[in-house]
Order: sequence, then C-alpha cells, then structure tokens
Amino acid sequence: MKEWHLLLIEDSDEDVAATVRGLRREDLNIVLHRCTTGDQALDYLYQREVYADRGQAPRPHLILLDLNLPGTDGRALLAVIKDDEDLKSIPVVVLTTSSNPKDIAACYRRGANSYQIKPVDYARFKQELQTLIDYWLRVATIPDAYD
Amino acid sequence: MKEWHLLLIEDSDEDVAATVRGLRREDLNIVLHRCTTGDQALDYLYQREVYADRGQAPRPHLILLDLNLPGTDGRALLAVIKDDEDLKSIPVVVLTTSSNPKDIAACYRRGANSYQIKPVDYARFKQELQTLIDYWLRVATIPDAYD
Repeated sequence: MKEWHLLLIEDSDEDVAATVRGLRREDLNIVLHRCTTGDQALDYLYQREVYADRGQAPRPHLILLDLNLPGTDGRALLAVIKDDEDLKSIPVVVLTTSSNPKDIAACYRRGANSYQIKPVDYARFKQELQTLIDYWLRVATIPDAYD
Repeated sequence: MKEWHLLLIEDSDEDVAATVRGLRREDLNIVLHRCTTGDQALDYLYQREVYADRGQAPRPHLILLDLNLPGTDGRALLAVIKDDEDLKSIPVVVLTTSSNPKDIAACYRRGANSYQIKPVDYARFKQELQTLIDYWLRVATIPDAYD
C-alpha cells in the first residue's frame, strides 16, 4: 500500500495526540511525522541537522501547519515554504484555533492551500480530519515527491 | 441560508451539465456562475464588459478551473489570479482531465489550491464533487468577499 507522508507541525502534545487519533485510517497507509517548532520543521524540510539523513525526513505529501508556534511561527514558516521553488508544490493545510478573518485571508494570500479551524469538540474534529484525508489523499491529486 | 458563489470556468457544455448535477446540495445554498473562456472569466473577476454591474458578478468564494480553454487558457488564468493581490485569496481548485504530472506540479507551484482529475465515470465524479463541497464549504474556512 502506498505510503503517505504527512508532516504535522504542532507544539501542543495534546493537539498532536488528538490529531494522530483523528487521522487514523484502515484504508490508507499514513505515516505521520511531527515537528514541534517552526525551526525544527525547517530542519526537516531542508534535511539539516538531525534530519540530514533522507530516510529520517521523507519529503511530505502534505503539511499540516499550526500557526502559533514558538520561534519561527506558522505564518513565517508558510512564507518560507511558499517562496521556495522546490517546496512550494507541497500542499499546506493550516490547522489552527485562530478564527481571525485577518489570519484567514493572510494565509490564503501567502499561499496556504487551505485553512481549517480546529473545533473544540473532539468528535467534530475527528470528522473534519477524516474529510481532510478523504479530500486530499483520495479526491485531490497531489504531487509525488519526484515531480 | 448563506449564499455560496462558485465560479466554474469550463468550455464544455457537457462537463458543465455534469458538474451542475454533481454539485447539487440540499443543505447548502450554492449559486454557480459559469464562464466559458479564460477571457470571459477575467471580465467576470474584474467586473468588466458585460459584468460591469457587480450584481452580475459577485466575487466567488471558490473557483473551479478547467485547464484547457480556448484563448487565455487555465494555466495562464491561474497565474493572473494568483499574481493579483486582491484575487489571490480566492481558493482555486483545478478540475481537469489532465493527469500529466508536469501539469499537476506546475499548477501547485503556480498557486492552485488543489488539483482534481475528473474521472470518466459519472457516479465517481459526483461523489468527488460532493467531497469537494464537504471539504471546501463545510470543513475548510475560506475568506469572505470582504476580507
């Protein structure tokens, strides 16, 4: 079964645990990689430091990005990814609690592929993550690592 | 009920008919606007010519874009939209028969929010359009016209 590499950039362990549970699928082989900070995500994406070995940091098919991160925050990280000729073809889904219309429009303007507000209710969050997976991995076509 | 304005840019009447049927929803008020060519779509988005009256051409929440169009084609139109500071926050879903990996990567690189290959089988096409609607209008948050 095809391996789908997702990179989750999220500092909250609680949110990571909920996201890991919410993304679970029987019909797809999803490998979730997690970075806690924006700087760690940059090391991952550029295979630097602890990620210098490619096997440690396969190019993700999809990035799930929290906005509020310590250090390089999600907005700045989005800008780096979408200004990089190589990385910009990776779809970035912003996954955040911010419902500020300025954040929403600014993220789309900066090149976010979509923006999802995390609901407080876990059952709803799980359902929305399942629709995210249905849409991005089954309905949409996303570039393979070599394209 | 909130009106969702979708702009479908597609030259084939047959594909438009299938898309209109496939997008039908009881639970959402979807208003579908259709342009046949890239040039007509530019008139719509910039409210020029026959679309000079704003009521004729409300800003779309979402654009569904075919790639192969007469005149200004879908790739060129995508570039215009994503280079325009005002229009670039409107999500653009490429809806095409092209499964060429070069088209896929190039569209994402040019700022397409997602890329969907239209399946030949109508039942599957309909199901994928329904997932598109579930994802973009119910799960994702997209900017309102005024943001």
